[in-house]
Amino acid sequence: MAELITIDDPADPRLGDYTCLTDVELRRRREPAEGLFIAEGEKVIRRARYSGYQMRSMLLSAKWVDTMRDVIDEVPAPVYAVSPEVAEQVTGYHVHRGALASMERRPLPDASELLADARRVVVMEAVNDHTNIGAVFRSAAALGMDAVLLSPDCADPLYRRSVKVSMGAVFSVPYARLEQWPRDLETVRERGFRLLALTPDAKAEDIDVVAPHRMERVALMLGAEGEGLSTRALVAADQWVRIPMAHGVDSLNVGAAAAVAFYAVTAGRPVA
Amino acid sequence: MAELITIDDPADPRLGDYTCLTDVELRRRREPAEGLFIAEGEKVIRRARYSGYQMRSMLLSAKWVDTMRDVIDEVPAPVYAVSPEVAEQVTGYHVHRGALASMERRPLPDASELLADARRVVVMEAVNDHTNIGAVFRSAAALGMDAVLLSPDCADPLYRRSVKVSMGAVFSVPYARLEQWPRDLETVRERGFRLLALTPDAKAEDIDVVAPHRMERVALMLGAEGEGLSTRALVAADQWVRIPMAHGVDSLNVGAAAAVAFYAVTAGRPVA
Repeated sequence: MAELITIDDPADPRLGDYTCLTDVELRRRREPAEGLFIAEGEKVIRRARYSGYQMRSMLLSAKWVDTMRDVIDEVPAPVYAVSPEVAEQVTGYHVHRGALASMERRPLPDASELLADARRVVVMEAVNDHTNIGAVFRSAAALGMDAVLLSPDCADPLYRRSVKVSMGAVFSVPYARLEQWPRDLETVRERGFRLLALTPDAKAEDIDVVAPHRMERVALMLGAEGEGLSTRALVAADQWVRIPMAHGVDSLNVGAAAAVAFYAVTAGRPVA
Repeated sequence: MAELITIDDPADPRLGDYTCLTDVELRRRREPAEGLFIAEGEKVIRRARYSGYQMRSMLLSAKWVDTMRDVIDEVPAPVYAVSPEVAEQVTGYHVHRGALASMERRPLPDASELLADARRVVVMEAVNDHTNIGAVFRSAAALGMDAVLLSPDCADPLYRRSVKVSMGAVFSVPYARLEQWPRDLETVRERGFRLLALTPDAKAEDIDVVAPHRMERVALMLGAEGEGLSTRALVAADQWVRIPMAHGVDSLNVGAAAAVAFYAVTAGRPVA
Protein backbone atom coordinates (compact mmCIF):
# COMPACT_ATOMS: atom_id res chain seq x y z
CA MET A 1 0.00 0.00 0.00
CA ALA A 2 1.23 3.46 -0.94
CA GLU A 3 2.08 6.10 1.55
CA LEU A 4 -0.15 9.17 1.15
CA ILE A 5 1.95 12.26 1.76
CA THR A 6 0.57 15.79 1.77
CA ILE A 7 3.03 18.34 0.37
CA ASP A 8 2.56 22.12 0.58
CA ASP A 9 5.91 23.28 -0.74
CA PRO A 10 6.20 23.28 -4.55
CA ALA A 11 10.01 23.19 -4.17
CA ASP A 12 9.89 19.88 -2.26
CA PRO A 13 12.47 17.65 -3.99
CA ARG A 14 10.11 14.69 -3.84
CA LEU A 15 8.10 16.40 -6.59
CA GLY A 16 11.17 16.56 -8.86
CA ASP A 17 9.74 14.16 -11.46
CA TYR A 18 6.90 16.62 -12.15
CA THR A 19 8.69 19.95 -12.58
CA CYS A 20 8.35 22.12 -15.68
CA LEU A 21 6.11 19.73 -17.59
CA THR A 22 5.30 22.40 -20.18
CA ASP A 23 8.97 22.81 -21.16
CA VAL A 24 8.98 20.34 -24.04
CA GLU A 25 12.67 20.68 -24.83
CA LEU A 26 13.68 20.11 -21.23
CA ARG A 27 11.34 17.18 -20.69
CA ARG A 28 12.26 15.38 -23.90
CA ARG A 29 15.88 15.38 -22.73
CA ARG A 30 15.23 14.67 -19.06
CA GLU A 31 12.67 11.89 -19.22
CA PRO A 32 14.59 9.29 -21.25
CA ALA A 33 17.81 10.21 -19.39
CA GLU A 34 16.14 9.67 -16.02
CA GLY A 35 14.21 6.61 -17.17
CA LEU A 36 10.75 7.98 -16.48
CA PHE A 37 7.66 9.13 -18.30
CA ILE A 38 4.52 10.93 -17.17
CA ALA A 39 1.04 9.45 -17.36
CA GLU A 40 -1.76 11.99 -17.04
CA GLY A 41 -5.33 11.40 -15.97
CA GLU A 42 -7.03 8.44 -14.35
CA LYS A 43 -7.63 6.39 -17.48
CA VAL A 44 -4.11 6.70 -18.83
CA ILE A 45 -2.54 5.96 -15.43
CA ARG A 46 -4.63 2.81 -15.11
CA ARG A 47 -3.67 1.70 -18.61
CA ALA A 48 0.03 2.21 -17.93
CA ARG A 49 -0.24 0.03 -14.82
CA TYR A 50 -2.34 -2.56 -16.62
CA SER A 51 0.41 -2.77 -19.25
CA GLY A 52 2.93 -3.58 -16.55
CA TYR A 53 4.74 -0.29 -16.07
CA GLN A 54 6.05 0.32 -12.55
CA MET A 55 5.00 3.50 -10.80
CA ARG A 56 7.68 5.75 -9.26
CA SER A 57 5.17 8.07 -7.61
CA MET A 58 1.80 9.72 -8.13
CA LEU A 59 0.77 13.35 -7.69
CA LEU A 60 -2.90 13.98 -6.92
CA SER A 61 -5.18 16.87 -6.13
CA ALA A 62 -6.90 16.06 -2.85
CA LYS A 63 -10.26 15.44 -4.49
CA TRP A 64 -8.79 12.69 -6.67
CA VAL A 65 -7.67 10.60 -3.70
CA ASP A 66 -11.01 8.80 -3.48
CA THR A 67 -11.17 8.05 -7.20
CA MET A 68 -7.67 6.62 -7.17
CA ARG A 69 -8.06 4.83 -3.83
CA ASP A 70 -7.73 1.33 -5.29
CA VAL A 71 -4.51 2.27 -7.10
CA ILE A 72 -3.14 3.92 -3.96
CA ASP A 73 -3.92 0.75 -2.02
CA GLU A 74 -2.12 -1.45 -4.54
CA VAL A 75 1.10 0.35 -5.44
CA PRO A 76 4.17 0.58 -3.22
CA ALA A 77 5.13 3.99 -4.67
CA PRO A 78 4.60 7.18 -2.65
CA VAL A 79 1.50 9.24 -3.46
CA TYR A 80 1.75 13.00 -3.05
CA ALA A 81 -1.45 14.92 -2.31
CA VAL A 82 -1.19 18.58 -3.26
CA SER A 83 -3.50 21.53 -3.76
CA PRO A 84 -4.35 22.51 -7.35
CA GLU A 85 -2.20 25.63 -6.81
CA VAL A 86 0.87 23.62 -5.79
CA ALA A 87 0.28 21.26 -8.73
CA GLU A 88 0.27 24.24 -11.06
CA GLN A 89 3.39 25.78 -9.51
CA VAL A 90 5.32 22.53 -9.87
CA THR A 91 4.20 21.49 -13.35
CA GLY A 92 3.73 24.90 -14.94
CA TYR A 93 0.10 24.36 -15.95
CA HIS A 94 -3.35 23.84 -14.48
CA VAL A 95 -3.58 20.06 -14.10
CA HIS A 96 -7.27 19.76 -14.84
CA ARG A 97 -7.12 15.99 -15.02
CA GLY A 98 -6.10 16.08 -11.37
CA ALA A 99 -3.80 13.05 -11.40
CA LEU A 100 -0.26 12.56 -12.68
CA ALA A 101 1.95 9.54 -12.31
CA SER A 102 5.66 9.20 -12.88
CA MET A 103 6.26 5.78 -14.40
CA GLU A 104 9.43 3.75 -14.88
CA ARG A 105 10.51 3.22 -18.49
CA ARG A 106 11.37 -0.28 -19.61
CA PRO A 107 14.14 -1.24 -22.02
CA LEU A 108 12.75 -1.34 -25.56
CA PRO A 109 12.70 -4.73 -27.26
CA ASP A 110 14.86 -5.38 -30.30
CA ALA A 111 13.14 -4.97 -33.62
CA SER A 112 13.91 -8.58 -34.51
CA GLU A 113 12.16 -9.74 -31.34
CA LEU A 114 9.00 -7.84 -32.27
CA LEU A 115 9.07 -9.05 -35.83
CA ALA A 116 9.12 -12.71 -34.86
CA ASP A 117 5.43 -12.74 -33.91
CA ALA A 118 4.13 -9.92 -36.09
CA ARG A 119 2.39 -9.93 -39.44
CA ARG A 120 1.41 -6.25 -39.75
CA VAL A 121 3.90 -3.61 -38.68
CA VAL A 122 4.10 0.16 -39.05
CA VAL A 123 7.46 1.76 -39.82
CA MET A 124 7.58 5.50 -39.10
CA GLU A 125 10.30 7.77 -40.47
CA ALA A 126 11.05 11.13 -38.84
CA VAL A 127 7.59 11.59 -37.37
CA ASN A 128 8.61 14.09 -34.72
CA ASP A 129 5.28 15.61 -33.82
CA HIS A 130 4.03 14.16 -30.53
CA THR A 131 0.38 14.53 -31.49
CA ASN A 132 0.89 12.65 -34.75
CA ILE A 133 2.88 9.88 -33.06
CA GLY A 134 0.05 9.45 -30.57
CA ALA A 135 -2.63 9.47 -33.26
CA VAL A 136 -0.80 6.81 -35.28
CA PHE A 137 -0.47 4.55 -32.23
CA ARG A 138 -4.16 4.96 -31.40
CA SER A 139 -5.20 3.93 -34.90
CA ALA A 140 -2.62 1.13 -34.99
CA ALA A 141 -4.11 -0.33 -31.80
CA ALA A 142 -7.71 0.04 -32.94
CA LEU A 143 -7.11 -1.47 -36.37
CA GLY A 144 -4.99 -4.36 -35.17
CA MET A 145 -1.47 -3.53 -36.30
CA ASP A 146 0.95 -5.79 -34.41
CA ALA A 147 3.97 -3.54 -33.80
CA VAL A 148 5.60 -0.20 -34.59
CA LEU A 149 9.18 0.42 -35.68
CA LEU A 150 10.62 3.93 -35.38
CA SER A 151 13.45 5.54 -37.29
CA PRO A 152 16.10 7.08 -35.00
CA ASP A 153 14.66 10.59 -35.47
CA CYS A 154 11.06 9.83 -34.54
CA ALA A 155 9.69 11.52 -31.42
CA ASP A 156 9.24 9.70 -28.14
CA PRO A 157 5.96 7.75 -27.91
CA LEU A 158 6.12 8.05 -24.11
CA TYR A 159 6.19 11.84 -24.10
CA ARG A 160 3.11 13.08 -22.18
CA ARG A 161 1.30 14.48 -25.21
CA SER A 162 1.86 11.32 -27.31
CA VAL A 163 0.59 9.16 -24.47
CA LYS A 164 -2.52 11.29 -24.07
CA VAL A 165 -3.41 11.50 -27.77
CA SER A 166 -2.85 7.76 -28.14
CA MET A 167 -5.32 7.14 -25.27
CA GLY A 168 -2.66 4.85 -23.83
CA ALA A 169 -2.18 2.84 -27.04
CA VAL A 170 1.58 3.49 -26.77
CA PHE A 171 1.45 1.02 -23.86
CA SER A 172 -0.37 -1.72 -25.71
CA VAL A 173 1.22 -1.69 -29.17
CA PRO A 174 4.81 -2.90 -28.83
CA TYR A 175 7.44 -0.76 -30.50
CA ALA A 176 11.18 -0.66 -31.13
CA ARG A 177 13.72 1.71 -32.64
CA LEU A 178 15.70 0.91 -35.75
CA GLU A 179 19.27 2.01 -35.08
CA GLN A 180 20.63 2.25 -38.62
CA TRP A 181 18.36 4.08 -41.00
CA PRO A 182 17.41 3.04 -43.57
CA ARG A 183 19.84 0.11 -43.48
CA ASP A 184 17.92 -1.79 -40.79
CA LEU A 185 14.94 -2.05 -43.13
CA GLU A 186 16.91 -4.91 -44.62
CA THR A 187 16.36 -6.83 -41.37
CA VAL A 188 12.64 -6.30 -41.72
CA ARG A 189 12.71 -7.63 -45.28
CA GLU A 190 14.79 -10.64 -44.26
CA ARG A 191 12.06 -11.56 -41.81
CA GLY A 192 9.68 -11.99 -44.70
CA PHE A 193 7.97 -8.61 -44.65
CA ARG A 194 7.05 -6.78 -47.81
CA LEU A 195 8.07 -3.12 -47.39
CA LEU A 196 5.23 -0.90 -48.65
CA ALA A 197 6.03 2.82 -48.75
CA LEU A 198 2.96 5.06 -48.42
CA THR A 199 3.37 8.07 -50.69
CA PRO A 200 1.12 10.36 -52.72
CA ASP A 201 3.59 10.02 -55.62
CA ALA A 202 1.82 9.45 -58.92
CA LYS A 203 4.12 6.51 -59.67
CA ALA A 204 2.77 4.63 -56.66
CA GLU A 205 0.05 2.01 -57.10
CA ASP A 206 -3.39 2.41 -55.55
CA ILE A 207 -3.40 0.58 -52.23
CA ASP A 208 -6.78 -1.01 -52.92
CA VAL A 209 -5.39 -2.50 -56.13
CA VAL A 210 -2.24 -3.74 -54.38
CA ALA A 211 -4.51 -5.45 -51.81
CA PRO A 212 -1.96 -5.69 -49.00
CA HIS A 213 -4.50 -7.45 -46.76
CA ARG A 214 -3.81 -10.56 -48.84
CA MET A 215 -0.06 -10.43 -48.19
CA GLU A 216 1.48 -12.68 -45.58
CA ARG A 217 3.64 -10.07 -43.85
CA VAL A 218 3.49 -6.33 -44.43
CA ALA A 219 5.64 -3.46 -43.14
CA LEU A 220 3.87 -0.21 -43.93
CA MET A 221 6.24 2.77 -44.09
CA LEU A 222 4.94 6.26 -43.19
CA GLY A 223 6.74 9.61 -43.30
CA ALA A 224 6.10 12.86 -41.48
CA GLU A 225 3.24 15.22 -42.28
CA GLY A 226 4.31 17.48 -45.11
CA GLU A 227 7.63 15.96 -46.15
CA GLY A 228 6.54 12.34 -46.38
CA LEU A 229 9.14 9.60 -46.70
CA SER A 230 12.71 10.54 -47.63
CA THR A 231 14.12 9.51 -50.99
CA ARG A 232 16.41 6.95 -49.38
CA ALA A 233 13.50 5.41 -47.51
CA LEU A 234 11.48 5.27 -50.74
CA VAL A 235 14.41 3.62 -52.50
CA ALA A 236 14.68 1.04 -49.73
CA ALA A 237 11.03 0.00 -50.08
CA ASP A 238 9.78 -2.97 -52.11
CA GLN A 239 6.77 -1.17 -53.51
CA TRP A 240 5.12 2.25 -53.38
CA VAL A 241 1.45 2.47 -52.52
CA ARG A 242 -0.90 5.42 -52.48
CA ILE A 243 -4.34 6.11 -51.13
CA PRO A 244 -6.54 6.97 -54.10
CA MET A 245 -7.32 10.66 -53.76
CA ALA A 246 -9.54 13.17 -55.43
CA HIS A 247 -7.78 15.86 -57.43
CA GLY A 248 -7.03 19.36 -56.32
CA VAL A 249 -6.89 18.91 -52.57
CA ASP A 250 -4.18 18.56 -50.01
CA SER A 251 -3.44 15.04 -48.99
CA LEU A 252 -4.93 13.53 -45.87
CA ASN A 253 -3.28 14.44 -42.60
CA VAL A 254 -0.87 11.79 -41.37
CA GLY A 255 -3.33 10.43 -38.79
CA ALA A 256 -6.11 9.96 -41.34
CA ALA A 257 -3.71 8.53 -43.95
CA ALA A 258 -2.32 6.07 -41.42
CA ALA A 259 -5.81 4.95 -40.38
CA VAL A 260 -6.85 4.33 -43.99
CA ALA A 261 -3.64 2.45 -44.75
CA PHE A 262 -3.95 0.30 -41.59
CA TYR A 263 -7.48 -0.56 -42.60
CA ALA A 264 -6.34 -1.48 -46.11
CA VAL A 265 -3.59 -3.66 -44.67
CA THR A 266 -5.67 -5.40 -42.02
CA ALA A 267 -9.24 -5.68 -43.27
CA GLY A 268 -10.29 -8.63 -45.35
CA ARG A 269 -12.21 -6.58 -47.82
CA PRO A 270 -12.95 -8.39 -51.04
CA VAL A 271 -11.74 -6.14 -53.84
CA ALA A 272 -14.24 -5.38 -56.57
CA MET B 1 -8.06 47.06 -57.43
CA ALA B 2 -8.34 47.22 -53.64
CA GLU B 3 -7.64 50.32 -51.65
CA LEU B 4 -4.71 49.80 -49.28
CA ILE B 5 -5.47 51.62 -46.03
CA THR B 6 -3.07 51.84 -43.11
CA ILE B 7 -4.84 51.80 -39.74
CA ASP B 8 -3.14 52.56 -36.41
CA ASP B 9 -6.16 52.63 -34.12
CA PRO B 10 -7.38 49.20 -33.01
CA ALA B 11 -10.78 50.74 -32.23
CA ASP B 12 -11.26 51.85 -35.86
CA PRO B 13 -14.77 50.66 -36.81
CA ARG B 14 -13.54 49.48 -40.21
CA LEU B 15 -11.83 46.60 -38.35
CA GLY B 16 -15.15 45.52 -36.82
CA ASP B 17 -15.28 42.19 -38.69
CA TYR B 18 -12.06 41.10 -36.94
CA THR B 19 -12.73 41.90 -33.29
CA CYS B 20 -12.47 39.32 -30.49
CA LEU B 21 -11.69 36.37 -32.76
CA THR B 22 -10.74 34.22 -29.76
CA ASP B 23 -14.20 34.58 -28.19
CA VAL B 24 -15.72 31.44 -29.68
CA GLU B 25 -19.19 31.96 -28.21
CA LEU B 26 -19.40 35.52 -29.49
CA ARG B 27 -18.05 34.71 -32.95
CA ARG B 28 -20.28 31.68 -33.49
CA ARG B 29 -23.30 33.92 -32.92
CA ARG B 30 -22.01 36.99 -34.74
CA GLU B 31 -20.61 35.51 -37.93
CA PRO B 32 -23.71 33.75 -39.30
CA ALA B 33 -25.89 36.68 -38.16
CA GLU B 34 -23.70 39.18 -40.00
CA GLY B 35 -23.22 36.93 -43.00
CA LEU B 36 -19.44 36.71 -42.80
CA PHE B 37 -16.70 34.23 -42.01
CA ILE B 38 -12.97 34.62 -41.43
CA ALA B 39 -10.32 33.03 -43.64
CA GLU B 40 -6.86 32.92 -42.08
CA GLY B 41 -3.52 32.66 -43.84
CA GLU B 42 -2.51 33.07 -47.45
CA LYS B 43 -3.42 29.59 -48.64
CA VAL B 44 -6.88 29.52 -47.09
CA ILE B 45 -7.70 33.04 -48.32
CA ARG B 46 -6.74 32.08 -51.86
CA ARG B 47 -8.84 28.93 -51.68
CA ALA B 48 -11.86 30.84 -50.45
CA ARG B 49 -11.55 33.23 -53.40
CA TYR B 50 -10.93 30.40 -55.83
CA SER B 51 -14.15 28.80 -54.60
CA GLY B 52 -16.03 31.96 -55.48
CA TYR B 53 -16.52 33.59 -52.08
CA GLN B 54 -16.64 37.39 -52.18
CA MET B 55 -14.23 39.29 -49.96
CA ARG B 56 -15.55 42.00 -47.61
CA SER B 57 -12.10 43.15 -46.54
CA MET B 58 -8.63 41.92 -45.72
CA LEU B 59 -6.41 42.67 -42.72
CA LEU B 60 -2.66 42.34 -43.29
CA SER B 61 0.54 42.89 -41.39
CA ALA B 62 2.68 45.23 -43.47
CA LYS B 63 5.16 42.51 -44.44
CA TRP B 64 2.36 40.46 -46.04
CA VAL B 65 1.41 43.18 -48.50
CA ASP B 66 3.95 41.98 -51.09
CA THR B 67 2.91 38.33 -50.80
CA MET B 68 -0.74 39.21 -51.24
CA ARG B 69 -0.14 41.86 -53.92
CA ASP B 70 -1.92 39.94 -56.69
CA VAL B 71 -5.01 39.48 -54.52
CA ILE B 72 -4.93 43.13 -53.50
CA ASP B 73 -4.78 44.08 -57.16
CA GLU B 74 -7.74 41.91 -58.06
CA VAL B 75 -10.32 42.44 -55.32
CA PRO B 76 -12.50 45.52 -54.96
CA ALA B 77 -12.64 45.11 -51.15
CA PRO B 78 -10.63 47.41 -48.86
CA VAL B 79 -7.34 46.05 -47.51
CA TYR B 80 -6.26 47.22 -44.07
CA ALA B 81 -2.53 47.24 -43.31
CA VAL B 82 -1.82 47.15 -39.58
CA SER B 83 1.11 46.47 -37.30
CA PRO B 84 1.30 43.05 -35.60
CA GLU B 85 0.49 44.85 -32.32
CA VAL B 86 -2.70 46.38 -33.70
CA ALA B 87 -3.66 43.03 -35.23
CA GLU B 88 -3.28 41.41 -31.81
CA GLN B 89 -5.24 44.14 -30.03
CA VAL B 90 -8.13 43.81 -32.47
CA THR B 91 -8.32 40.03 -32.76
CA GLY B 92 -7.19 39.04 -29.28
CA TYR B 93 -4.29 36.84 -30.41
CA HIS B 94 -0.96 37.01 -32.16
CA VAL B 95 -1.86 36.60 -35.84
CA HIS B 96 1.22 34.66 -36.86
CA ARG B 97 -0.19 33.82 -40.27
CA GLY B 98 -0.17 37.57 -40.93
CA ALA B 99 -3.25 37.70 -43.14
CA LEU B 100 -6.96 37.55 -42.36
CA ALA B 101 -9.85 38.04 -44.71
CA SER B 102 -13.50 38.64 -43.94
CA MET B 103 -15.52 36.78 -46.55
CA GLU B 104 -19.19 36.97 -47.50
CA ARG B 105 -21.25 33.86 -46.72
CA ARG B 106 -23.44 32.43 -49.45
CA PRO B 107 -26.88 30.91 -48.97
CA LEU B 108 -26.55 27.16 -48.44
CA PRO B 109 -28.01 24.94 -51.14
CA ASP B 110 -30.97 22.70 -50.36
CA ALA B 111 -30.09 19.14 -49.49
CA SER B 112 -32.16 17.89 -52.40
CA GLU B 113 -30.16 20.05 -54.79
CA LEU B 114 -26.88 18.52 -53.56
CA LEU B 115 -28.25 15.01 -53.69
CA ALA B 116 -29.23 15.26 -57.34
CA ASP B 117 -25.64 14.95 -58.55
CA ALA B 118 -24.09 13.02 -55.66
CA ARG B 119 -23.33 9.35 -55.20
CA ARG B 120 -21.35 9.44 -51.94
CA VAL B 121 -22.50 11.73 -49.15
CA VAL B 122 -21.56 12.16 -45.51
CA VAL B 123 -24.29 12.83 -42.97
CA MET B 124 -23.04 14.24 -39.66
CA GLU B 125 -25.13 14.29 -36.49
CA ALA B 126 -24.31 16.67 -33.63
CA VAL B 127 -20.63 17.00 -34.49
CA ASN B 128 -20.09 20.25 -32.65
CA ASP B 129 -16.33 20.30 -32.32
CA HIS B 130 -14.84 22.68 -34.89
CA THR B 131 -11.62 20.68 -35.19
CA ASN B 132 -13.51 17.47 -35.91
CA ILE B 133 -15.79 19.14 -38.45
CA GLY B 134 -12.72 20.47 -40.26
CA ALA B 135 -10.95 17.11 -40.17
CA VAL B 136 -13.99 15.33 -41.61
CA PHE B 137 -14.26 17.83 -44.47
CA ARG B 138 -10.54 17.50 -45.26
CA SER B 139 -10.81 13.72 -45.51
CA ALA B 140 -14.08 13.94 -47.43
CA ALA B 141 -12.40 16.14 -50.04
CA ALA B 142 -9.27 14.01 -50.29
CA LEU B 143 -11.18 10.74 -50.59
CA GLY B 144 -13.75 11.96 -53.07
CA MET B 145 -16.98 12.23 -51.08
CA ASP B 146 -19.42 14.32 -53.10
CA ALA B 147 -21.30 16.28 -50.42
CA VAL B 148 -21.91 16.71 -46.70
CA LEU B 149 -25.27 16.97 -44.92
CA LEU B 150 -25.37 18.37 -41.39
CA SER B 151 -27.93 17.81 -38.64
CA PRO B 152 -29.25 21.07 -37.18
CA ASP B 153 -26.93 20.85 -34.15
CA CYS B 154 -23.64 20.40 -36.01
CA ALA B 155 -21.08 23.17 -35.65
CA ASP B 156 -20.43 25.73 -38.38
CA PRO B 157 -18.00 24.51 -41.07
CA LEU B 158 -17.10 28.14 -41.81
CA TYR B 159 -15.93 28.89 -38.28
CA ARG B 160 -12.24 29.93 -38.43
CA ARG B 161 -10.89 26.79 -36.75
CA SER B 162 -12.96 24.44 -38.96
CA VAL B 163 -11.79 26.25 -42.07
CA LYS B 164 -8.15 26.01 -40.98
CA VAL B 165 -8.20 22.33 -40.00
CA SER B 166 -10.03 21.47 -43.23
CA MET B 167 -7.25 23.22 -45.22
CA GLY B 168 -10.04 24.97 -47.08
CA ALA B 169 -11.95 21.78 -47.92
CA VAL B 170 -15.10 23.37 -46.46
CA PHE B 171 -15.05 25.56 -49.58
CA SER B 172 -14.74 22.73 -52.07
CA VAL B 173 -17.05 20.04 -50.67
CA PRO B 174 -20.63 21.28 -51.00
CA TYR B 175 -22.76 20.99 -47.87
CA ALA B 176 -26.29 21.62 -46.67
CA ARG B 177 -28.23 21.49 -43.43
CA LEU B 178 -31.07 19.10 -42.81
CA GLU B 179 -33.79 21.08 -41.07
CA GLN B 180 -35.85 18.30 -39.53
CA TRP B 181 -33.79 15.71 -37.73
CA PRO B 182 -33.93 12.81 -38.23
CA ARG B 183 -37.06 13.14 -40.38
CA ASP B 184 -35.23 14.64 -43.37
CA LEU B 185 -33.18 11.48 -43.70
CA GLU B 186 -36.27 10.19 -45.46
CA THR B 187 -35.58 12.67 -48.27
CA VAL B 188 -32.10 11.22 -48.62
CA ARG B 189 -33.49 7.71 -48.85
CA GLU B 190 -36.10 8.76 -51.40
CA ARG B 191 -33.28 9.98 -53.62
CA GLY B 192 -31.98 6.43 -53.82
CA PHE B 193 -29.33 6.57 -51.12
CA ARG B 194 -28.70 3.69 -48.79
CA LEU B 195 -28.33 5.10 -45.26
CA LEU B 196 -25.36 3.44 -43.57
CA ALA B 197 -24.90 4.29 -39.89
CA LEU B 198 -21.30 4.04 -38.69
CA THR B 199 -21.26 2.64 -35.17
CA PRO B 200 -19.00 0.46 -33.03
CA ASP B 201 -22.09 -1.51 -31.93
CA ALA B 202 -21.49 -5.25 -32.00
CA LYS B 203 -24.73 -5.74 -33.94
CA ALA B 204 -23.35 -3.73 -36.86
CA GLU B 205 -21.82 -5.51 -39.84
CA ASP B 206 -18.16 -5.10 -40.76
CA ILE B 207 -17.91 -2.38 -43.37
CA ASP B 208 -15.51 -4.45 -45.48
CA VAL B 209 -18.09 -7.24 -45.66
CA VAL B 210 -20.90 -4.82 -46.51
CA ALA B 211 -18.70 -3.51 -49.37
CA PRO B 212 -20.40 -0.11 -49.74
CA HIS B 213 -18.07 0.80 -52.62
CA ARG B 214 -20.26 -1.44 -54.76
CA MET B 215 -23.47 0.37 -53.86
CA GLU B 216 -24.94 2.86 -56.27
CA ARG B 217 -25.65 5.64 -53.78
CA VAL B 218 -24.44 5.74 -50.20
CA ALA B 219 -25.16 8.19 -47.35
CA LEU B 220 -22.68 7.50 -44.57
CA MET B 221 -23.94 8.66 -41.16
CA LEU B 222 -21.40 9.75 -38.50
CA GLY B 223 -21.98 10.84 -34.91
CA ALA B 224 -19.90 12.94 -32.55
CA GLU B 225 -16.71 11.75 -30.86
CA GLY B 226 -17.67 9.88 -27.72
CA GLU B 227 -21.45 9.69 -28.00
CA GLY B 228 -21.70 8.45 -31.56
CA LEU B 229 -25.03 8.47 -33.37
CA SER B 230 -28.23 8.94 -31.34
CA THR B 231 -30.70 6.11 -31.01
CA ARG B 232 -33.20 7.85 -33.26
CA ALA B 233 -30.57 8.34 -35.94
CA LEU B 234 -29.59 4.68 -35.69
CA VAL B 235 -33.25 3.69 -36.00
CA ALA B 236 -33.63 5.84 -39.10
CA ALA B 237 -30.72 4.13 -40.88
CA ASP B 238 -31.05 1.29 -43.39
CA GLN B 239 -28.07 -0.64 -42.08
CA TRP B 240 -25.43 -0.41 -39.36
CA VAL B 241 -21.80 -0.74 -40.33
CA ARG B 242 -18.69 -0.89 -38.19
CA ILE B 243 -14.99 -0.63 -38.79
CA PRO B 244 -13.45 -3.94 -37.75
CA MET B 245 -11.46 -3.15 -34.59
CA ALA B 246 -9.06 -4.92 -32.32
CA HIS B 247 -10.32 -5.68 -28.83
CA GLY B 248 -9.57 -3.76 -25.69
CA VAL B 249 -8.91 -0.34 -27.14
CA ASP B 250 -10.87 2.82 -27.51
CA SER B 251 -12.43 3.33 -30.87
CA LEU B 252 -10.73 5.45 -33.51
CA ASN B 253 -11.10 9.18 -33.15
CA VAL B 254 -13.85 10.61 -35.33
CA GLY B 255 -11.39 11.94 -37.93
CA ALA B 256 -9.65 8.60 -38.36
CA ALA B 257 -12.95 6.68 -38.36
CA ALA B 258 -14.38 9.01 -40.99
CA ALA B 259 -11.30 8.64 -43.20
CA VAL B 260 -11.46 4.84 -43.04
CA ALA B 261 -15.18 4.81 -43.78
CA PHE B 262 -14.79 7.24 -46.71
CA TYR B 263 -12.10 5.01 -48.13
CA ALA B 264 -14.31 1.95 -47.74
CA VAL B 265 -17.17 3.78 -49.46
CA THR B 266 -15.17 5.28 -52.32
CA ALA B 267 -12.24 2.99 -53.11
CA GLY B 268 -12.43 0.55 -55.92
CA ARG B 269 -14.94 2.61 -57.83
CA PRO B 270 -13.84 4.33 -60.98
CA VAL B 271 -13.49 8.02 -60.13
CA ALA B 272 -15.54 10.21 -62.40
